[in-house]
Amino acid sequence: MAETIYANYPPQLSPEQQEFLVAFTKDWAIQNGLAVRPNPALLPEGADANHVLATTAPVTLFPSPFPKACFEEAQALQTLYNQLYATITSNQEWLGKIIEDLTDVDEFVANLWQTHLAVQKEGYVQNLSLGLFRSDYMADVTPTHDPALKQVEFNTISASFGGLSDRVRSLHTELLTSSPGGSINYPSHPLLESQTPPANNAVETLSNGLAVAHEAYGQPKSSAALPLCILFVVQEGERNVFDQLALFKRLTTFHKIPVFRIYSNKIFDQTSIPSSNPSRPLVYYPPHSPSSAFEVTTVYLRAYYSPDEYKSPRDWEARTHLERSAAIKCPTVLNQLSGCKKVQQILAQPTGPDHLSSLLKDVDAARISRLRETFAPQYDLSASGQGRDLALNPETAMKHVLKPQREGGGNNIYKSEIPDFLKSLPESDWKSWVLMEIINPAPNAENVALRVDGEVLRGNVISELGIYGTILWDNTGKIHYNDQGGWLLRTKGKEVNEGGVAAGFSSLDSVLLF
Amino acid sequence: MAETIYANYPPQLSPEQQEFLVAFTKDWAIQNGLAVRPNPALLPEGADANHVLATTAPVTLFPSPFPKACFEEAQALQTLYNQLYATITSNQEWLGKIIEDLTDVDEFVANLWQTHLAVQKEGYVQNLSLGLFRSDYMADVTPTHDPALKQVEFNTISASFGGLSDRVRSLHTELLTSSPGGSINYPSHPLLESQTPPANNAVETLSNGLAVAHEAYGQPKSSAALPLCILFVVQEGERNVFDQLALFKRLTTFHKIPVFRIYSNKIFDQTSIPSSNPSRPLVYYPPHSPSSAFEVTTVYLRAYYSPDEYKSPRDWEARTHLERSAAIKCPTVLNQLSGCKKVQQILAQPTGPDHLSSLLKDVDAARISRLRETFAPQYDLSASGQGRDLALNPETAMKHVLKPQREGGGNNIYKSEIPDFLKSLPESDWKSWVLMEIINPAPNAENVALRVDGEVLRGNVISELGIYGTILWDNTGKIHYNDQGGWLLRTKGKEVNEGGVAAGFSSLDSVLLF
Repeated sequence: MAETIYANYPPQLSPEQQEFLVAFTKDWAIQNGLAVRPNPALLPEGADANHVLATTAPVTLFPSPFPKACFEEAQALQTLYNQLYATITSNQEWLGKIIEDLTDVDEFVANLWQTHLAVQKEGYVQNLSLGLFRSDYMADVTPTHDPALKQVEFNTISASFGGLSDRVRSLHTELLTSSPGGSINYPSHPLLESQTPPANNAVETLSNGLAVAHEAYGQPKSSAALPLCILFVVQEGERNVFDQLALFKRLTTFHKIPVFRIYSNKIFDQTSIPSSNPSRPLVYYPPHSPSSAFEVTTVYLRAYYSPDEYKSPRDWEARTHLERSAAIKCPTVLNQLSGCKKVQQILAQPTGPDHLSSLLKDVDAARISRLRETFAPQYDLSASGQGRDLALNPETAMKHVLKPQREGGGNNIYKSEIPDFLKSLPESDWKSWVLMEIINPAPNAENVALRVDGEVLRGNVISELGIYGTILWDNTGKIHYNDQGGWLLRTKGKEVNEGGVAAGFSSLDSVLLF
Repeated sequence: MAETIYANYPPQLSPEQQEFLVAFTKDWAIQNGLAVRPNPALLPEGADANHVLATTAPVTLFPSPFPKACFEEAQALQTLYNQLYATITSNQEWLGKIIEDLTDVDEFVANLWQTHLAVQKEGYVQNLSLGLFRSDYMADVTPTHDPALKQVEFNTISASFGGLSDRVRSLHTELLTSSPGGSINYPSHPLLESQTPPANNAVETLSNGLAVAHEAYGQPKSSAALPLCILFVVQEGERNVFDQLALFKRLTTFHKIPVFRIYSNKIFDQTSIPSSNPSRPLVYYPPHSPSSAFEVTTVYLRAYYSPDEYKSPRDWEARTHLERSAAIKCPTVLNQLSGCKKVQQILAQPTGPDHLSSLLKDVDAARISRLRETFAPQYDLSASGQGRDLALNPETAMKHVLKPQREGGGNNIYKSEIPDFLKSLPESDWKSWVLMEIINPAPNAENVALRVDGEVLRGNVISELGIYGTILWDNTGKIHYNDQGGWLLRTKGKEVNEGGVAAGFSSLDSVLLF
């Protein structure tokens, strides 16, 4: 069933049909803020001296089929995933042991851990944490069983595209419905006639999370009783700014909360913590109105997630400055660390201790088992055992991928290349790698993508579904708010070596459920 | 009073304040579709091969003060202005005499008139006309009297910016209100603390007009009973496309009417009138779905307004093709002609026959006199009389501007330069010019503009207020629908020779009423 759906989709386009869809999409994207700033490196020298140009966000021209049962299961499990990662973050004994094991192979993880330990030594003054999470999945599609939901990763920091994903849904919905008596925008196809993508309230869900934290902060702690605000910490030169601004707009216009954006390299210029105040309020001074100081209730990080953002000790000091303040962090350093690959691998290792059951003590076994079903098996290679056996046997290696343990580093090694690759490394380095069972994408899925430069690519694709969740909890593990809502479909061209013709694009997409 | 208001406005900006306002405005514009396509001539060669880039529409950073009494009077008079121009269009005897007088000095007017006569000879098959009008005004501000509303021109074809003007109002409103306890986005100033710009329903008003015409068209006239649609005729390479798309979106999503856009150079490729059908339905074949023919109820021209759009006889044939069809035209050729400068001059000539009273027979004298109050006196120079006297006397010339009679042609001659300029022409050419009493802009009005290339200019400005109206009438002069709503403020840099420093920009703006 699943394979048939993908085999005939999307329908072929005549040149006039493609021209129409591209023109419609380019215009619709700008009219509706489905935009990004262009990469200056791709423009001729001097083309946009004042950084005023924008372009369409990369999108698919068609929505992609996605198994309905997998979509619904992902939504049904999101609040439990929120709880799991809040619990892990609160369980410093469990998490700390994993992290300390990593510090000698991953300098970034080591630095984050040191940042946490330093603030812990001084003493945290905020016991609430906010998570805006996105759990990413693929549908495992094979001829032998029903499509199965498998997790790719769990994002605990700077989970993006919640601000744009509903716009792609709107674009595709308008294309599907804008003419009466059946759309003439697309060529005829059964999947395109029966339905539209499901509702997507990612902006509302994520903004609600920020608003709940803002409210939970309580009274100002600064002696002058400053007005309260939320602070978005962003990267200078960020091109995905309209994604962030969708949350900004919802918070300012619907929740009526003052929100400011600050570049991560301006933290010390525009914020301070009064040294005389043991409550350590984080005070923000808007550069355009420096006499109007605000106290920050919630720091929302859309920066500081990648090792290459920490160029000097000053950057680590700035991160520490935010961490030690009274503001609620989204996320804390510990919560960021809970999202590292090693944690996912330990949870997903089929043998050994049942971490899930001991972490989620109050959750019934059936629900835990549904969560476990979404894990693709992952194995540690630091010592002899099942992982090494599967990796070195050419037959079993074919069903796996080898991923680097380091955050933000290196490429994956696939299937038949695994045994020889591993043998080429000294055994002492094997612990830097994780073996993961491959998730099987629909082998014949295709789509047509419009790139940010207006080029159109058609080819084999792999789609990942993201589900957004938000949770507020305290460092005793008590959960104050837990919600899920909104989704993202991201569709990428398959690597050339796997037979695709459209490698090198990654597009925002929406789903047609089947 | 008025002069004081303008003298201290807008407040000065520190570099940080300006940087903030510019960054906010650039991002807000793209997020909210307040955009235009960049002029390819201003980009380096090859910078946007696929025409995918967009930039901020030109806007002012501050709203501009505008006298409340003038604003309200302009709104109060709009439906009467609609009626006046519908009546003129229906009164072919009155209008024809004026147009025929022009045909030897203005080839464009002559060609339009011939187009009308040719269709009239064959016989019109549609007796309804739709107007989407914009009446443009300045506030005449002098120390000696209260600000007075004076009409600059009345647009009967392709009146633009209705789709973007409310977005500028929203931008300025958000800047004025986004922080609690008084905005910190602008420096302190009394005008910026007491109010926000008035509501602006231009998109709704103009779309309603199109929807009313669509409905009034009635049953399909094509033998196959095709589905009905509205057709926007647009210029290929149009940069102001998002303005048009705002109406397109309202019509498709709120009114649920199919709408298509067609380039004016594709009229014969994508439409036809079945020669066997005496009702002459205009049939549109979407190039992306040529088997899905639609019958056009309403042709909305966002093209064909300027002489330079008619490059060959084929263009005139295409215009004739639309004119002779059964579709309701917005506007008809005659309605386009009613908006020519000569008509305005004849209405505004202070001496001679009382055209207004004879055209608006059923309107009471007080209301006619309010309409007349908005005229700046204008004079014909074809024969001896008051016009020539005022133009040749250096003292009275100082209060006037000399404008070419031709549509879309040439520059204006101002004040002291008028007598010598006229004397340099043979008297037989004087009839190609109109003398108009100058409208006095607030001498010290200033604003700060953000150009499409991101440059920021501050200087003396002149603002024009436009009020939108829509009317549906038949060729007996009977009015079926008459409404007004929405406004536009357009602010331009004063010419350098009048002391301004910011010549060469024209920006979308909004009003703060005083």
